[in-house]
Amino acid sequence: MDHVSRLKALLPALSKHNLDALLVTHMPNVRYLCGFTGSSGVLVVTPRSVTFFTDGRYSEQATQQVKGAKVVTAKGGPVAGAAKLLTSFRGTVGFEGDHTTVSARQSFQELFSKPVRLKAVRGIVENLRLVKDDEELVQIRAAVNLGSELFRPAIEAIRPEIRESQVAAEIEYLARRGGAEKMSFETIVASGQRSALPHGVASDNRLAAKGFVILDYGVILHGYCSDMTRTVHVGRVPLRARQIYRSVLQAQEAATAAVAPGVEVGKVDAAARSVLRKVKLDRYFTHSTGHGVGLEIHEQPRVARGQTEVLRPGMVITIEPGVYLPGSGGVRIEDMVVVTERGCEILTPTTKELIEI
Amino acid sequence: MDHVSRLKALLPALSKHNLDALLVTHMPNVRYLCGFTGSSGVLVVTPRSVTFFTDGRYSEQATQQVKGAKVVTAKGGPVAGAAKLLTSFRGTVGFEGDHTTVSARQSFQELFSKPVRLKAVRGIVENLRLVKDDEELVQIRAAVNLGSELFRPAIEAIRPEIRESQVAAEIEYLARRGGAEKMSFETIVASGQRSALPHGVASDNRLAAKGFVILDYGVILHGYCSDMTRTVHVGRVPLRARQIYRSVLQAQEAATAAVAPGVEVGKVDAAARSVLRKVKLDRYFTHSTGHGVGLEIHEQPRVARGQTEVLRPGMVITIEPGVYLPGSGGVRIEDMVVVTERGCEILTPTTKELIEI
Repeated sequence: MDHVSRLKALLPALSKHNLDALLVTHMPNVRYLCGFTGSSGVLVVTPRSVTFFTDGRYSEQATQQVKGAKVVTAKGGPVAGAAKLLTSFRGTVGFEGDHTTVSARQSFQELFSKPVRLKAVRGIVENLRLVKDDEELVQIRAAVNLGSELFRPAIEAIRPEIRESQVAAEIEYLARRGGAEKMSFETIVASGQRSALPHGVASDNRLAAKGFVILDYGVILHGYCSDMTRTVHVGRVPLRARQIYRSVLQAQEAATAAVAPGVEVGKVDAAARSVLRKVKLDRYFTHSTGHGVGLEIHEQPRVARGQTEVLRPGMVITIEPGVYLPGSGGVRIEDMVVVTERGCEILTPTTKELIEI
Repeated sequence: MDHVSRLKALLPALSKHNLDALLVTHMPNVRYLCGFTGSSGVLVVTPRSVTFFTDGRYSEQATQQVKGAKVVTAKGGPVAGAAKLLTSFRGTVGFEGDHTTVSARQSFQELFSKPVRLKAVRGIVENLRLVKDDEELVQIRAAVNLGSELFRPAIEAIRPEIRESQVAAEIEYLARRGGAEKMSFETIVASGQRSALPHGVASDNRLAAKGFVILDYGVILHGYCSDMTRTVHVGRVPLRARQIYRSVLQAQEAATAAVAPGVEVGKVDAAARSVLRKVKLDRYFTHSTGHGVGLEIHEQPRVARGQTEVLRPGMVITIEPGVYLPGSGGVRIEDMVVVTERGCEILTPTTKELIEI
């Protein structure tokens, strides 16, 4: 779907929310709608016109990138530019309540002249982004494949006395070499007892001589994020550790099997939790099962307990249960999947066999 | 200054704003006040108690890191935890208007019981962070020095046909090897015509055979950011290019010379602009002269036209004028400086001589 079609797909939402115009300020939403990849800009969408405001730093880039909108470099900044456009406007202007601070709302109020009524709206563009179109899926597959290609070199980098941060450095260097703009979040390399931290970003610690190492990382390629986790084991795997790994893998597979159009995401979460409950590990699974991924690393839907969002073909989510035994160690296994007409396709091609190093 | 002292320094601001409690949700502010480095948490400060709420993923990490506050893992998430604490509370609770979305404010309203009055406040913690204490200056110097050490290898990586992204990859890899947690922003490597983009993040383009290359990057080391820009030239420097480089350097030096306690930051910006005006290049200087740096890459003060913030010893800012000739090329030179009792100290040790490659 090209940008013009995406902009067109937005118009029914404007009328549904009784908006005469929508101010789009959240940059991933701006990028989705008009293609601009910079960090400063406001898109003003009305049923009759689309205008993109940016500042002096981005004039040239905006002219090159923006599709479907008129580009204006606004002297006092993009918001002031938008306000000027809407000065003679009478009607309701929507703004993104999830991405506009209380202070920014205040400054909108001061900049916009009286007849404009401001209205906070939520998730209008995100709702469009929930189901990925074919072009997006091509980009997401490319990002996932690049991320996956880094796994083998990453575990080959693991050797006695190496620091967690050094393993992260190797992954990130190869990501860049492979064309990634950047990582989609801070690389997690959590070894030994630190593997019990569900969010253990790579530290300067040297890798523990034995035990699990969680590797959780993602790349951004052409704007789209990947996200994967694998847990490997340094030294021979004790029986108890092997059992825990197997249980997490079973939970991960059960949740994946539950993914299908028409299914509430809460049911996917429940599928993972139920496997772990049977082996009394559910209380060590302290986070949710997954999240949407696309232009942002964390998108809707939240694949979490009790969530009622219904899966549709084209949604892309992670499935990433984990078990964390405080003071001891942890295991997490994560794939990205795309919902298909009948179930789902696992995007992440990397093996989930337990690797001993 | 330890975290307990920082928390204590916050109390006069609470009483000045007539607050009975302050909810701190902006993570750099949370880190500054209590030492927590994760991504999810709320700090509730009252004159009598300080409590840090986090979620299950961060329980263990919070217990290890947080100083000066009681740590609570809240089942429904940190905000719900904070709301529960304040349930029986009668009084005014401040929240960070610059960092709280309109939607989040709405959910605060729903979570907090009636007698609590919510009040948006701005910059309370940022005001404390404006002047760096000795411990922070140690960290900032270390980050600046690490960033600076990467410059020589970066320009050594420049060879015919190399891609901008590859130069960025080398810088980022060495940053990691040097202990950086990550880069403080997307690395800019902008060559040839792309050097005319004031914010040209490294692309997949191969380096132009001739012309300027802008390198603008920073590292985060122990939470603190560095930021530096140098512009080098591939091939022999034509006379006009040399003149432009010299003018930008003079502007950079004039602005640096203007930095002193008691000076309004707008005057620093004006010093740079005035040098460029004399050589008719001021209209190609399309951004502001600099910004504060610390736990965040962009902090107060904004060193921009007309800004009236007054410099004080211990403030750390960038000085980074640039000239961009559309379709042709650009030059930017940036140091970080710390305001001293009499003027300023340039933190960035890297040469500003024009390097020909």
